[in-house]
Amino acid sequence: MTPAILLIAHGSRRKQANDDLHRLRDLVLERPPEGVEIVEVGFLELAEPSIPDGFRACVARGATEVRIVPFFLSMGVHMAEDLEEFRGQFAESHPQVAVNVRPPLGLHEKIVDVIRERCVE
Amino acid sequence: MTPAILLIAHGSRRKQANDDLHRLRDLVLERPPEGVEIVEVGFLELAEPSIPDGFRACVARGATEVRIVPFFLSMGVHMAEDLEEFRGQFAESHPQVAVNVRPPLGLHEKIVDVIRERCVE
Repeated sequence: MTPAILLIAHGSRRKQANDDLHRLRDLVLERPPEGVEIVEVGFLELAEPSIPDGFRACVARGATEVRIVPFFLSMGVHMAEDLEEFRGQFAESHPQVAVNVRPPLGLHEKIVDVIRERCVE
Repeated sequence: MTPAILLIAHGSRRKQANDDLHRLRDLVLERPPEGVEIVEVGFLELAEPSIPDGFRACVARGATEVRIVPFFLSMGVHMAEDLEEFRGQFAESHPQVAVNVRPPLGLHEKIVDVIRERCVE
C-alpha cells in the first residue's frame, strides 16, 4: 500500500481561507504520519483543485490508498453526503485504490487548547 | 471587567454537528482561560441559540466584555462580514459591553497533531 492524504475543505470566496489549506498541507508534509509521503488538497466548491482533481493527483503520484481528511471541526449533513458520494465515485473509477473518509477534527482536547490561546492573545 | 467567551459556529441541519458546539462549551468550562467563568454559544443559522441570543445570555450573566471566538479553522468572507456586523450591532445596543472578534483556530501546530491522529486511528 502507498498511502496518501487528501485534505478537504469547503472552499471560500476569500482567498486567504483557501491558502490556509495549502499551508496546512505543507505543515503536514513537514511531519507526516508514518509511511505517508503524498499529501494533496481538494475543495468542495469555490476554489481549485476540486476534490476529484486532488484525488487524481494522489493516484498520479502512485497512491494505492487515499485517506480523505476533512479540515473542519464537525461534519455537516451536506459535507458528509458529498464526501460519501465522492468515495463511491472514486471506488468505481479506481477500484485498485482503497478510499476511506476519516473523521473531522472534532472535540479533541488540543482544540480546546487552541481556543484558550485564541481567547487570551 | 467580567469577560465572557461566545463560541460561534455556522450551524448545521445535522444535530450532531450542533451538539458538538455545546460539548465544546462544556470542555472549555472545565478549564477556562484565567478569569473567565461565562462561556456561551451562538449559531449563525440553522440552529439555536442565535448569535444575538448567545450575546444576550453573556450580558444577562454579568459580562462586561464578550470575546467572540469562531469555532472553525479559517474565516470565509461570509462569516467574517457577518461577525463584524454583529459586533457593530452589539456595540450600539450595549455600549457598556466591550465586544471583540478573536481569530479562528487557524494553522496551529496542535491542529496538525490532531490531523495526524485522525489519519492513523
